Amino acid sequence: MQELKDRILKDGKAIGTDILKVDSFLNHQIDVKLLDNIGEEFRKRLYTQDVNKILTVEASGIAIACAASRAMGYLPVVFAKKAAPKTMISGSYTAEVVSFTKGTQTMIRVGKEFLGPQDRVLIIDDFLASGEAAFGLLNILKQAGAECLGIGAVIEKEYQGGSAKLRAMGYNVASLAVITSIENGKINFK
Amino acid sequence: MQELKDRILKDGKAIGTDILKVDSFLNHQIDVKLLDNIGEEFRKRLYTQDVNKILTVEASGIAIACAASRAMGYLPVVFAKKAAPKTMISGSYTAEVVSFTKGTQTMIRVGKEFLGPQDRVLIIDDFLASGEAAFGLLNILKQAGAECLGIGAVIEKEYQGGSAKLRAMGYNVASLAVITSIENGKINFK
Repeated sequence: MQELKDRILKDGKAIGTDILKVDSFLNHQIDVKLLDNIGEEFRKRLYTQDVNKILTVEASGIAIACAASRAMGYLPVVFAKKAAPKTMISGSYTAEVVSFTKGTQTMIRVGKEFLGPQDRVLIIDDFLASGEAAFGLLNILKQAGAECLGIGAVIEKEYQGGSAKLRAMGYNVASLAVITSIENGKINFK
Repeated sequence: MQELKDRILKDGKAIGTDILKVDSFLNHQIDVKLLDNIGEEFRKRLYTQDVNKILTVEASGIAIACAASRAMGYLPVVFAKKAAPKTMISGSYTAEVVSFTKGTQTMIRVGKEFLGPQDRVLIIDDFLASGEAAFGLLNILKQAGAECLGIGAVIEKEYQGGSAKLRAMGYNVASLAVITSIENGKINFK
């Protein structure tokens, strides 16, 4: 998606070889017009009429999932909530997720009333790096007996291996900007 | 906003005298079409051409703020992030907020590059109860030298006093559904 790559080059900040900050338009300040175009691009790349729900995880996935929903005829969005690990949570599907950027482990959860065997779901998130968040959400879908029809990421860091693992497992993955490396502050796209 | 009140009566769950759960359409599963109508209602009630930014707090405020942005010609949205209290945060405005429902204290923060004296801001959030989150966001606006032109809440629990305090301080407050009491599972609107 050219508009997105241009914006990353213009406003993204590369830190070291692993971190890309997109705080100014995607996950702290949000450019909602760009998000609508991102939602439309996910529709083109991932939508089929079998899809009936969008799943993401708080916080930065929420706005993106809602933009995708709007482009796909207002599908319901469910966002997994974050809770402290060890917290006793009844009535929820839960999974542990390791945050790459924060180095912390987080429990994510979805209330059982919002996902079930009738659901055919797209997973949508801001970043796909090692795939930890996606694996956590897939774990939750499995517990619910729901099916994953596709995984969409706004920005993929291909060199961290998540998308290759997910594709090897048979999942349909669509990333709108694929980064192959970050070197000396320079961002290289595929 | 009649559509919202009808939805609260249909799908909201009252717990005790203080808690209203709207997990099925507002803050866990999201009805994005309803959100767009909510955004349009905020435009009617709060928008003037002086407004140049929308401020909210993660996680459940994000989708609502983005819907308001869309209705207001795609104003930039900034969401305050939550961090553990005591966390050292450089380059941010911070404020402490007590969560009414969780009984916990949270530090919220906004990067200094995203708010400044040039900003005339609408604060948008899902709930307005005792007003803790709004006071935290106002504190951040004050640190930034930014002006608050209005405060919008999807659901107000009037009996918890936040809106009265904010109005007494001169703020323009718009709540789309105002609850006067919750008794034996019954929700009473103003």
